[in-house]
Amino acid sequence: MAKGIIFVADGMAGRPIPELDGKTTLESADTPHMDRIALEGECGLLDPISPGVRAGSDTSHLALLGYNPYEYYTGRGPFEAMGAGLAVKPGDIALRMNFATIDDKGIVIDRRAGRIQENEGTHQLAELLNHLEIDRVQILCNASTAHRGAVVLRGEDLSGEIEDADPHREGKPIPKAKPLTKEAKRTGAVVDKLIAKSVELFRDHEINKKRIKEGKSPANCVLLRGAGVAPRVQLFSERYKIKGAAVVEVGLIRGIARFLGLDLIDVPTATGGADTDEVGLARAVVGALGDYDLVLTNIKAPDLGGHDGDYKAKISAIEKADRMSGIIYEGIKGSDTHLAILADHATPVVCRDHTGDAVPIATWGKMTRPDGVKSYGERPCIGGGLERIQGIDLMPIMLNLMGAAEKFGA
Amino acid sequence: MAKGIIFVADGMAGRPIPELDGKTTLESADTPHMDRIALEGECGLLDPISPGVRAGSDTSHLALLGYNPYEYYTGRGPFEAMGAGLAVKPGDIALRMNFATIDDKGIVIDRRAGRIQENEGTHQLAELLNHLEIDRVQILCNASTAHRGAVVLRGEDLSGEIEDADPHREGKPIPKAKPLTKEAKRTGAVVDKLIAKSVELFRDHEINKKRIKEGKSPANCVLLRGAGVAPRVQLFSERYKIKGAAVVEVGLIRGIARFLGLDLIDVPTATGGADTDEVGLARAVVGALGDYDLVLTNIKAPDLGGHDGDYKAKISAIEKADRMSGIIYEGIKGSDTHLAILADHATPVVCRDHTGDAVPIATWGKMTRPDGVKSYGERPCIGGGLERIQGIDLMPIMLNLMGAAEKFGA
Repeated sequence: MAKGIIFVADGMAGRPIPELDGKTTLESADTPHMDRIALEGECGLLDPISPGVRAGSDTSHLALLGYNPYEYYTGRGPFEAMGAGLAVKPGDIALRMNFATIDDKGIVIDRRAGRIQENEGTHQLAELLNHLEIDRVQILCNASTAHRGAVVLRGEDLSGEIEDADPHREGKPIPKAKPLTKEAKRTGAVVDKLIAKSVELFRDHEINKKRIKEGKSPANCVLLRGAGVAPRVQLFSERYKIKGAAVVEVGLIRGIARFLGLDLIDVPTATGGADTDEVGLARAVVGALGDYDLVLTNIKAPDLGGHDGDYKAKISAIEKADRMSGIIYEGIKGSDTHLAILADHATPVVCRDHTGDAVPIATWGKMTRPDGVKSYGERPCIGGGLERIQGIDLMPIMLNLMGAAEKFGA
Repeated sequence: MAKGIIFVADGMAGRPIPELDGKTTLESADTPHMDRIALEGECGLLDPISPGVRAGSDTSHLALLGYNPYEYYTGRGPFEAMGAGLAVKPGDIALRMNFATIDDKGIVIDRRAGRIQENEGTHQLAELLNHLEIDRVQILCNASTAHRGAVVLRGEDLSGEIEDADPHREGKPIPKAKPLTKEAKRTGAVVDKLIAKSVELFRDHEINKKRIKEGKSPANCVLLRGAGVAPRVQLFSERYKIKGAAVVEVGLIRGIARFLGLDLIDVPTATGGADTDEVGLARAVVGALGDYDLVLTNIKAPDLGGHDGDYKAKISAIEKADRMSGIIYEGIKGSDTHLAILADHATPVVCRDHTGDAVPIATWGKMTRPDGVKSYGERPCIGGGLERIQGIDLMPIMLNLMGAAEKFGA
């Protein structure tokens, strides 16, 4: 059986930019490697979810891995929690967490605790809540990047149907986690008690004494929001009968990969930012082919340039992704490996957020049917052999090219 | 947030015509404005329902507005009734009505009462049935164009599962509205009694005395068919969080627009025929953008030429639609408005009826990605950036271009 690589350049697709004579950042960037892959392969357009629908990175990656997001996406909490390193199980309730600052009267005066950083003790604070038991519910807690973290509630009779225990703006007290159904009453109470516990345990902690002394906002409580129940899924390996790994940078995508049972391969020099180590990422991808059948990789940088509305930064990030694709190409050239290059959604510089535009996709490998597309990009891929497909189609297409698909019928 | 216009030229798409050297009427017509919109925008083919499926104008418009017709289309009755000016509510039973002629023995001798016209008293006759109460069921009745009208039954325990009380051809008596389920028995009886009531009330009416004197077939009964229960829908404004209006000519499309909660904007000079006022329609569309986020417009004339098998008439009508699109284009040029131009289905001159062919679509506005398509038409739009989409995709695509779409995921 052949191998496969799904290469996602996060948010790489876009819209015409006046300063670039109506070209997109991808069409303007110098991308010799992606262009060669498109020239030698089979291209088209892909709607991450369906035409016009604005995908998040989470819903898009679920679809790209063959899991219908309308079935499996139960809110951001579970995916954030897995991305934060918590081993979420089906049925767990997960919530996003902020370290925050309240004043003596309990009013939230900073929802991000002075944008506290990981190296300023967030992991130690999270550890104070981790493994607590409240009302026979086990608490798992971990910090992720900056002021962010996640919480998992594990126990009987829990529900994700609670309101956020987060005022969503400064100047107000922390609201109760109001249950939206009768069944959620117990869950709401646990969340409220957990927040009270954070206030009790964080208040006089050394970390906060130090922050106050330095004139920084103390992380003297947590806010919890986006509760969701972790859905039941069939693991990637069971579903497709192949071994999968992920070389991905950011928490949300790591969470999805872990949740589906993909092994995570760490690249210590991958930062998830514009300065990430694309060479290290590419080498990890090629290296993983020794042990795995399919490798998902995601480089985050192009998305950041889009969100920042900075076309120069986005072009640089796309050229970084191109270098990464070039190293992968060299690493698999001549081997029996199929590669798909795509974006998980568009993040146009002119919109500074995800849009629902179709993204270009190139599939490459000896089993593809080259189609006359000459370079990679939103417009160059129009009219390719893949025409217009959807995210959920990608895994069947990859398995088909890899010779790993089961026949439906006789 | 930007604005949007969905411009439907009814039945505009077609098939090759030998007399036009194998071109379609759309490809033969002089359409400089649509061509420019296609050149500057992003094009493709659209299947109103799905490939090959022959759409009615009603099912197509439901899909184009984002409502799956397989879920919401419960027969023509409810839509006809709304088009006839009846304020149909979810749960009502609605039927199409013909004014017809029976002889002394009760045999239907003219299903259209000599093609009686609106100015010959149909509204007065309908008013005789309007607001009757039969078996605790409230009757609403209105005439629409020519011999046509609609009836609504409002009350407890009603069902749309009845056979037509219409012999569908002359020379037979009016059949009973046979119930197809036990639950529909009561409804069938009400329909039968309503028809009996029409015979009683119409027989010696002045209008009919006059018709008989003039040698015309009297409208001495009604036939009722196409019973359907009005479905429950989420209003357009609730579904999309935008304000929508419709500038449309004919009853059926007006009915759908009203049903979904779009505000109807009347153009008194719009006739729904080949002589309609395309300038007035276009101005109403542009004018509505002051108050509304999205405007649906439909010009009926191209469909009529198709049904009549008259390619010259259809070309003229398409050129009328083109002038309308030109005025709209001038009215929105430079503003933040996105426009989609399409047909709701094909009505090929060579078939004289709707067919299930894909129709050309052009989307235009500053957020589209121009794709190299040079003119508008069935073949010119092949290979455009939209590739091949479906009717149900149109609203997500418009909302995405308008910046009015919610993100699914994070």
